Amino acid sequence: MKKGQFVVIEGLEGAGKTTAVATVKDWLVAQGHTVVQTREPGGTALAEQIRTLVKAVQQEQMAPETELLLMYAARVQLLSQVIRPALERGDWVLGDRHDLSSRAYQGGGRQLDEALINKIRSAVLGDTRPDFTIYLDIDPALGLARAKARGELDRIELEQLAFFQRTRAKYLQIAQQEPNISVIDASQPLVQVQQAIRRALTEHFK
Amino acid sequence: MKKGQFVVIEGLEGAGKTTAVATVKDWLVAQGHTVVQTREPGGTALAEQIRTLVKAVQQEQMAPETELLLMYAARVQLLSQVIRPALERGDWVLGDRHDLSSRAYQGGGRQLDEALINKIRSAVLGDTRPDFTIYLDIDPALGLARAKARGELDRIELEQLAFFQRTRAKYLQIAQQEPNISVIDASQPLVQVQQAIRRALTEHFK
Repeated sequence: MKKGQFVVIEGLEGAGKTTAVATVKDWLVAQGHTVVQTREPGGTALAEQIRTLVKAVQQEQMAPETELLLMYAARVQLLSQVIRPALERGDWVLGDRHDLSSRAYQGGGRQLDEALINKIRSAVLGDTRPDFTIYLDIDPALGLARAKARGELDRIELEQLAFFQRTRAKYLQIAQQEPNISVIDASQPLVQVQQAIRRALTEHFK
Repeated sequence: MKKGQFVVIEGLEGAGKTTAVATVKDWLVAQGHTVVQTREPGGTALAEQIRTLVKAVQQEQMAPETELLLMYAARVQLLSQVIRPALERGDWVLGDRHDLSSRAYQGGGRQLDEALINKIRSAVLGDTRPDFTIYLDIDPALGLARAKARGELDRIELEQLAFFQRTRAKYLQIAQQEPNISVIDASQPLVQVQQAIRRALTEHFK
């Protein structure tokens, strides 16, 4: 039986991930695929509890390594409970963030050692990797302005601009070095972003 | 300045860790040390939230890798916020469980691959290791009967006897292979256990 494929949307706060997820979903459904949507951190009852914990503004400083391990704890839970079973059933999985987020935010933003992150990744991710990733690229100043307009910021969104600039730089660096990542300019008008997403999907999957 | 030392009490449920911690604390204080007590998982406000999450009986099955990462998330938080600063001040740290618990419970009990656990350990623990560990050895049937008599069992305590037998076997295996771990028969009468603890401390530190 043909296995399903795993498509992931990545990007900074305010890049337009939610709209992009809807665009990708419509496209996949139109191709006749059954689509399972996930978000990270989260996506299962338990992983959502980890999400709440990792995003809460707390008095206590969270060590960068603690944040990293919580992200991967939520991720392996989602992988084992949702992503792998769905792919094995032949469904397609559409993720709002996945592994690349940790590499960009914890590796770029928090400046955690890449070797440290890769040890965790190789220990727990197994061989489930996204088949295709769409990275919505946006200037963090613009993205954060959009995110702020939406309401309260969480612990990570409260970081300084430089944090998000490092995160963006890491996203772009990885997108340049690795296959199956499409970079889309998310500062364009919405209709153009949606067209670019559909074009990228068509090029990759047809 | 002389740095403090890190002493850890390990053992199965019902082995008598709480009493042993009190015995060790009295001994250390009598030697003139300032003692910082910790427990794992937990020991900081944030790590205690992770403890609550990892111990709660949930409808959703927790993947063994999720459990492992949550344990190490709590551990690195405690290391960064409490254990390392205390040792650097010259205080002694007395831990109710530490790294050896994960090696025994997740490695032995859950049968997670040792290489996987060691990747996580080497990625996040740094070079802070216990200077001396007291492992209170008990037949799990006896330990669990004691733990049950104390009240409600948490998610991990609800495991079957075979889980704890594997955990005990792993504790004993590591204690035999590695230095600075003293095995004490915790099925003895309390007074004898306390004497054995004080004797082990005297032998190690004097």
